[in-house]
Amino acid sequence: MRHILVFFFLFCINVTSAADPLPSWNAGPVKDAIINYVKCATNDGCPLYVPPRERIAVFDNDGTLWSEQPSYFQLLFALDRIKTLADQHPEWKTEQPFKAVLENDLKAVAASGKAGLLKIMAVTHSGMTTDEFADTVRNWIKTARHPEKKVHYTKLVYQPMLEVMNFLRANGFKTYIVSGGGVDFLRVWAEDVYGIPPEQVIGSSIKVKFEERDGKPVLVRLAEIDFIDDKEGKPVGIHRFIGRAPVIAFGNSDGDLEMLQWTDRRDNTLKVIVHHTDAQREYAYDRNSHIGRLDKALDEGQEKGWTVIDMQRDWKRIYPNSASDD
Amino acid sequence: MRHILVFFFLFCINVTSAADPLPSWNAGPVKDAIINYVKCATNDGCPLYVPPRERIAVFDNDGTLWSEQPSYFQLLFALDRIKTLADQHPEWKTEQPFKAVLENDLKAVAASGKAGLLKIMAVTHSGMTTDEFADTVRNWIKTARHPEKKVHYTKLVYQPMLEVMNFLRANGFKTYIVSGGGVDFLRVWAEDVYGIPPEQVIGSSIKVKFEERDGKPVLVRLAEIDFIDDKEGKPVGIHRFIGRAPVIAFGNSDGDLEMLQWTDRRDNTLKVIVHHTDAQREYAYDRNSHIGRLDKALDEGQEKGWTVIDMQRDWKRIYPNSASDD
Repeated sequence: MRHILVFFFLFCINVTSAADPLPSWNAGPVKDAIINYVKCATNDGCPLYVPPRERIAVFDNDGTLWSEQPSYFQLLFALDRIKTLADQHPEWKTEQPFKAVLENDLKAVAASGKAGLLKIMAVTHSGMTTDEFADTVRNWIKTARHPEKKVHYTKLVYQPMLEVMNFLRANGFKTYIVSGGGVDFLRVWAEDVYGIPPEQVIGSSIKVKFEERDGKPVLVRLAEIDFIDDKEGKPVGIHRFIGRAPVIAFGNSDGDLEMLQWTDRRDNTLKVIVHHTDAQREYAYDRNSHIGRLDKALDEGQEKGWTVIDMQRDWKRIYPNSASDD
Repeated sequence: MRHILVFFFLFCINVTSAADPLPSWNAGPVKDAIINYVKCATNDGCPLYVPPRERIAVFDNDGTLWSEQPSYFQLLFALDRIKTLADQHPEWKTEQPFKAVLENDLKAVAASGKAGLLKIMAVTHSGMTTDEFADTVRNWIKTARHPEKKVHYTKLVYQPMLEVMNFLRANGFKTYIVSGGGVDFLRVWAEDVYGIPPEQVIGSSIKVKFEERDGKPVLVRLAEIDFIDDKEGKPVGIHRFIGRAPVIAFGNSDGDLEMLQWTDRRDNTLKVIVHHTDAQREYAYDRNSHIGRLDKALDEGQEKGWTVIDMQRDWKRIYPNSASDD
C-alpha cells in the first residue's frame, strides 16, 4: 500500500511538471519565447538567469489583462455612477457633461473634453472615504455588465494572461499590475480575479486626506490628482512602489512604451506587447485607436526584437469561459 | 539507519517549534503580548484571527528598528556627503549651512533651520540618477561609522526587533517599513539588514524624472519633495502603497501616532510603542526630545491599552553583537 502511494505521488509530480503551463496559447514562437525565457531565468546556469529577489514581472491592465473597448471600463463605471447618483442631482438634467451621460449621448460626453471628464471623475471618484469608494466599486463589479458583450466585466479578462501570471508565480516571480487606471478601482477586485494582492497594484491616484469622522480615523478622497501612472509615469511608479526594475513587462499600447524601455535596460529581461488583431473574438485596433493606441511602441518593439503577441494567431481562447479554437 | 534519520528529523522539528522565538526579550507582559497576539491571529478559532491575506505588519524605522541619536542617521549621511563633495565646491567654505557642516558646528547647522536643511538635502540627495544615489548610499553604509558608538550604522539595529520581524514572517505576516526617512536611502540596505525587500519599504520621497542619458533611460532625482511619510502622511502612505490597513504597527514617536490610530480601527490588531528608557545601553528620551519626541502617542497608547516596550526592562540585549543581560 505504501509503495503504491509513493508511486502515485511521484506520478502526480511527473504529470504536473510535464503539463502545459499555457494551455490557451497556440504553439508557436510567442508561446516558446515566454516558456523558454522562464526556464532560463530560473536556471542559474543559463545566461538569462535572474536571482529570486529580482523576479519582478509587471503587467499593464487595460488591453493587456482585460478588454478596453468600447472604452476603458473604469470610465464605464463612472458613467454608471452618474446615472445612479442622478436622483440626488436634479441639476444634472441640464448641466453638461452630466446631461449627455444621462441621455447616453457618448459623442457629447467625448465632446466635453478633458474638463468634462474631470467633472465626471470628481463626482464619481472623490468626496467619499476610501472604504465607501471600495464598497461602491465592489458592488458595481459584481453587478454591472459590459454594454456589448453583455457579461460581467471580470469575465472579459484574458485567459492566456491568467495562465502567464500563474506560470510566473509558480516560478517565483512577483506579479504586479502597473496601470494608467485608478489604483483604488483596481485593488478591489484584482486579488480575486488575477491573484494579485492590493500591495502589488500600482496605478493612477488622487490625493487622500486623513481625518476623524464619528470618532474614527478615515481617509477621504479629494478631487485632486496625485499621480498619473502612464507613459513616463510608469517607470516612475515602478521606482516609487517597487524600488527595482522589473525583468518582465507586458503592455499593449504606447502608454506602456517607457515601462518596456525601462525593463529593456538589462539583457536578462522579457518585453511583450499584446497586439489586438482579433475583431471576431475581441477587438482589432492599433495605430489609429483613441483607446489603447499602439503605434510607436509597435515600431520600437519590432525594431528591438521584443515579443509581439498576435491575439488572433497566438491565443487559442480569449476569455475564461469562451470555447477554444473558435 | 533510516529510522535514526527519521527520529532525528522529528526531533529537530520539535525543538524548533518549542524554541523561544524572541530570545533577546526578557520574560514579562510585553513579550507575552506579542507572542500571544501572533498565536491567536494565526489560529482561526481565536477571536483575534487574521486571514493570511490581511497579515500586514508595519514598522517605523528610526528609533523603532535602529537608533536615531544624536540625530537621524540619514542626516548624518548627508553631512558626511557634504564633506566628501566639498572639494568640488570651494564656495562652501564661506556659505551657510555648508560652512557649519565643514566645521562640525552642529549648533550652527541646526540654527540654519528648515531652509538650511533643505539646501543640504538638495545637494546630497538630488541631481543624480537613482542608480548613482543608490551606489553612494551603499558605499556609505558599508564604510561610515556612528560618531558615538564608533561602529557601522547597521550594527545599531535592534536585535529584539529583528527577532519580532522574523517571528512574524514565519507566521505568514508581510513586514513593511513605514518611515519618515527617505525611501531610496532605506531600500539600499533594508533587505540585507532587516530581510525587508525594496517593494516593502514605504518612506518619504522626492520627485524623479524619466529621461534618456547616453542612449539609456534613467530616472533623475529632482530637488522637489514628492511625499512626506510622517504623522498623517503614514496612513496615507500605507493606503497608497499597500492598499489595506495593517493589523500590527510598531512605532516610537508622535510621528507614528496616526499610523497606530489607523491600525487601531479594528479589534484584531496589535499596536506597540518602543519607549527609549535605557541611557546606559542605548539612549533615554521621550517627551522633550527634538529627535523622536514621544509625548501624545505615549499618553494615547497608555489610555487605549496599546503595548509599550520599556527598552531597559524588556530587552535583554539591544544590538545584535552586544552582550545580553548587561
